[in-house]
Amino acid sequence: MEKAEHLRKILGEGKIVRIVGAHDGMGAKLVEQAGFDGVWASGCEIATSYALPDASILSMPDFLHRAKIINDATNLPVIADCDTGYGNAMNAMHMAREYESAGIAGVCIEDKKFPKTNSLLEGGRQELASIEEFALKVRACKDVQRTGDFMVFARVEALIAGWGMEEASKRAHAYADAGADGIFIHSKAKTPGEVLEFVKKWDGNAPILLCPTKYPSLTFDDIKKTGKVRIVIYANQGMRAQIKATKEVLSKIHVCGTTAPIEDDIATMDEIFALQGMKEFKDNEKGYIM
Amino acid sequence: MEKAEHLRKILGEGKIVRIVGAHDGMGAKLVEQAGFDGVWASGCEIATSYALPDASILSMPDFLHRAKIINDATNLPVIADCDTGYGNAMNAMHMAREYESAGIAGVCIEDKKFPKTNSLLEGGRQELASIEEFALKVRACKDVQRTGDFMVFARVEALIAGWGMEEASKRAHAYADAGADGIFIHSKAKTPGEVLEFVKKWDGNAPILLCPTKYPSLTFDDIKKTGKVRIVIYANQGMRAQIKATKEVLSKIHVCGTTAPIEDDIATMDEIFALQGMKEFKDNEKGYIM
Amino acid sequence: MEKAEHLRKILGEGKIVRIVGAHDGMGAKLVEQAGFDGVWASGCEIATSYALPDASILSMPDFLHRAKIINDATNLPVIADCDTGYGNAMNAMHMAREYESAGIAGVCIEDKKFPKTNSLLEGGRQELASIEEFALKVRACKDVQRTGDFMVFARVEALIAGWGMEEASKRAHAYADAGADGIFIHSKAKTPGEVLEFVKKWDGNAPILLCPTKYPSLTFDDIKKTGKVRIVIYANQGMRAQIKATKEVLSKIHVCGTTAPIEDDIATMDEIFALQGMKEFKDNEKGYIM
Amino acid sequence: MEKAEHLRKILGEGKIVRIVGAHDGMGAKLVEQAGFDGVWASGCEIATSYALPDASILSMPDFLHRAKIINDATNLPVIADCDTGYGNAMNAMHMAREYESAGIAGVCIEDKKFPKTNSLLEGGRQELASIEEFALKVRACKDVQRTGDFMVFARVEALIAGWGMEEASKRAHAYADAGADGIFIHSKAKTPGEVLEFVKKWDGNAPILLCPTKYPSLTFDDIKKTGKVRIVIYANQGMRAQIKATKEVLSKIHVCGTTAPIEDDIATMDEIFALQGMKEFKDNEKGYIM
Repeated sequence: MEKAEHLRKILGEGKIVRIVGAHDGMGAKLVEQAGFDGVWASGCEIATSYALPDASILSMPDFLHRAKIINDATNLPVIADCDTGYGNAMNAMHMAREYESAGIAGVCIEDKKFPKTNSLLEGGRQELASIEEFALKVRACKDVQRTGDFMVFARVEALIAGWGMEEASKRAHAYADAGADGIFIHSKAKTPGEVLEFVKKWDGNAPILLCPTKYPSLTFDDIKKTGKVRIVIYANQGMRAQIKATKEVLSKIHVCGTTAPIEDDIATMDEIFALQGMKEFKDNEKGYIM
Repeated sequence: MEKAEHLRKILGEGKIVRIVGAHDGMGAKLVEQAGFDGVWASGCEIATSYALPDASILSMPDFLHRAKIINDATNLPVIADCDTGYGNAMNAMHMAREYESAGIAGVCIEDKKFPKTNSLLEGGRQELASIEEFALKVRACKDVQRTGDFMVFARVEALIAGWGMEEASKRAHAYADAGADGIFIHSKAKTPGEVLEFVKKWDGNAPILLCPTKYPSLTFDDIKKTGKVRIVIYANQGMRAQIKATKEVLSKIHVCGTTAPIEDDIATMDEIFALQGMKEFKDNEKGYIM
Repeated sequence: MEKAEHLRKILGEGKIVRIVGAHDGMGAKLVEQAGFDGVWASGCEIATSYALPDASILSMPDFLHRAKIINDATNLPVIADCDTGYGNAMNAMHMAREYESAGIAGVCIEDKKFPKTNSLLEGGRQELASIEEFALKVRACKDVQRTGDFMVFARVEALIAGWGMEEASKRAHAYADAGADGIFIHSKAKTPGEVLEFVKKWDGNAPILLCPTKYPSLTFDDIKKTGKVRIVIYANQGMRAQIKATKEVLSKIHVCGTTAPIEDDIATMDEIFALQGMKEFKDNEKGYIM
Repeated sequence: MEKAEHLRKILGEGKIVRIVGAHDGMGAKLVEQAGFDGVWASGCEIATSYALPDASILSMPDFLHRAKIINDATNLPVIADCDTGYGNAMNAMHMAREYESAGIAGVCIEDKKFPKTNSLLEGGRQELASIEEFALKVRACKDVQRTGDFMVFARVEALIAGWGMEEASKRAHAYADAGADGIFIHSKAKTPGEVLEFVKKWDGNAPILLCPTKYPSLTFDDIKKTGKVRIVIYANQGMRAQIKATKEVLSKIHVCGTTAPIEDDIATMDEIFALQGMKEFKDNEKGYIM
């Protein structure tokens, strides 16, 4: 079964799909090993891994390149965070074609203007596209897909931009009507209040995606109770764990002038080789190399 | 001052240059912030980040692409781990041209046959090129450089391959005579005995590089006392810290169904934005966007 | 129907499939418009388009990148010229996976050692891999394919390397037995004699591919009469036409200081836009852009 | 001398610099061999070579990748056609950094909105950015350059968009004042009247670039007489010659079933090898390969 078909199937079964952000193949493998259902090819993580602003500075080919690496590294379906679709509806169509043919299960686009800025950045520019323009963009992506299973999720930024609940709801309905396979309602509130309010009122024809980066107090039980949320995105916690750990370990090596004191704080070389798939590689060498 | 010029300068001053492995721009920034002198664009880390074997499966353009990302993210000089030079001397020449023109301060090639396998892998194939063949490869890389400052380091794998100290020494001399800007003597022994023996005997015309992955008991003082080691490579501890941290954090999120319990174990979103250079970006937006 | 399935089908129907070399999307479109059956993603053309030697200087990702551009530009199936598989059998397996997942219908690998040199180059190094080694490489590529339709063609270089007809025949049988979907017998003789002799004797379980670059006197009727040749490759005539035409036109512009005298010797801007698919683009703009 | 320095020098000497469009390394080599002064990394040619619309469908990394291939293939300076700078001023800054560090002598950006459409397309959308917005974009590119020699050219699309001569002039002055190293005045008129009128009136502090694709009757003498035009761009005639030649040759092969009748219409294999630099390669093999 193709990954998009699999993702569609588990969503259809009513399961709450939990996906975790990654920016490379190693991250994708670790998400799979931790038992999650899918990988979020996070735009913010990918930009960070280039040490570049999450602000449309990298382009579609950069993000696609990483999404492909992520996808090749895991058996899980991948949903790619595709910002605004990288321009207008024509750019988004090209994007959708490329991601689908790379085997990505679904893409998510957001209703901001290109170039966008990260939604959680304090004081960031948050300019929304018009409803009609973005609904056509969603439609364009759906119209070019070659298989029935590829999914296009629409991210509503009205709460992020401070345009209010009513606008958010109106937009979500327009995007669902345009064919979106799910509505990602984003919020930077420090409590889950506003997203839960949105979800409660939601009566549109598409499941809801949540990303509780800013409101971690939301529990899995809370989500389950809504009955409408189908995908939860833990968008960047893996990378943030990596940053903290790297800082601590490098600082100790710098001070001590040896890695001896940190050997227990780091994975072994065998764990590295396992992530590389070295066992299978060595087995294949035996069969195919003289 | 160009980075290669800077690296050459600090090596010339007798400083022991400490460089740390990275596989992307984020890693490079963290190495710089921790106070080290340079970045090692680690072949093993890059392969791991693709979840592919460190065995010449990725190609030169893949490694160069990452080395460039690493280099662009940091003010530090970057030494790129270039495996065997990705084929024969003609491939190595092409590689050297590409890396130099990308602004990489230096490259390091090893005297194994292409395709190679990671040196620390138990039971891995470790086949050496002939001395003459590899010395010509070093020479080829030196002959195509456009500036006097670009550096080519030669990695001796004789101890890894079990060919003994005498062979290692003979090879090191041949490569130094061929123009290598430094000799990286590699070892997988669990104590620093054999590399210290090599260094003690070393009377060639090139500084020594060490990479104490397998023999962490070697201290900075030990290294200083040799008087001949100029570069110490902490090749992959940053990534190994990342793996351990990611595993722990993702496992907790999976069990708890919320990120609340791990919020203190991960970097903040502000740390993410800092790594992205978001402050400078916002300042530039003020100046250049209407 | 997928392209590999289509290619397999027309080969199965006994048709002589005529494919033409290309190195980019424009070339692929022109091959399709001329009425041919498929596109040969020519290694030699791609290297030339980089102005680099056809001698394993470019790497697998470079060739794959172009093969993908070629494939996306045409409805025809693409057979990719993959040199030696870019290393040993492990490299070839990785290559086969990547090409299949990019939608390429088939790959062709040749039994030379990596790095290889162009077969038609006078005085070029022509070193052959051992039969066993290359048969395993073919087997490796076949064993990793995910669909039954993807094809792996084996190119026999024994005649090129001067090892004789018997060796060529022995190799061809070994590769067919290892699973090759076709045998490409290559020759640099100026008449078709030796390839026709090879074909006449051929009783193996795989169709034959010919590439009459050096022996253009071979006619389509000659080929048909053999009853065993299924694919004819016109490997680089398109690019060679381009070179001659560019030289002539640029020379005239340089002398005349205006393009007026050459306007009839070049395609119109409308032909450019047609190759770009601009009509469909403008139609889509009407539907999806406000 | 670096290429940007060289370009600046020959422009300073009052020479009329003639540059020719290319989309790959082969094209760049042919431009050099024909005796021209530089290469125009044409956005339209590059899009065509992907068989994709010249309408911001390809992204900056795609264009940069080709500009680098072009630059590496020739000793001539390269001016890269960079559309709108691929987004807003922040995107343009990133672009300028990347192109300068790739060794490109100069970039040219146009004052249309992103995503843009080819200027010569009948009925194409031609929306202009505001003068202030685009002047800031030019300024942004100039402010990030690392060397004094890198050049940023500003392309005025007011005549293309039908906004008139006065608007064109006003824009040109604003861009020159913002630091543009040259003003590219573009026109789709079938005679050179309107560009000659523009040039005649021009009293700004920057040289003029012309691209007589649509008005081929303009002679080199006409240009010289203006005393203000410093760069003439023959943007796509090479590719258009290629298209016509490929169509003719492939059509004949298709009909005849052999390449015999077209062997005189195409370059020889030796010309292919010359473009690849095969002679130098073989010489190097002698020196560096055992």
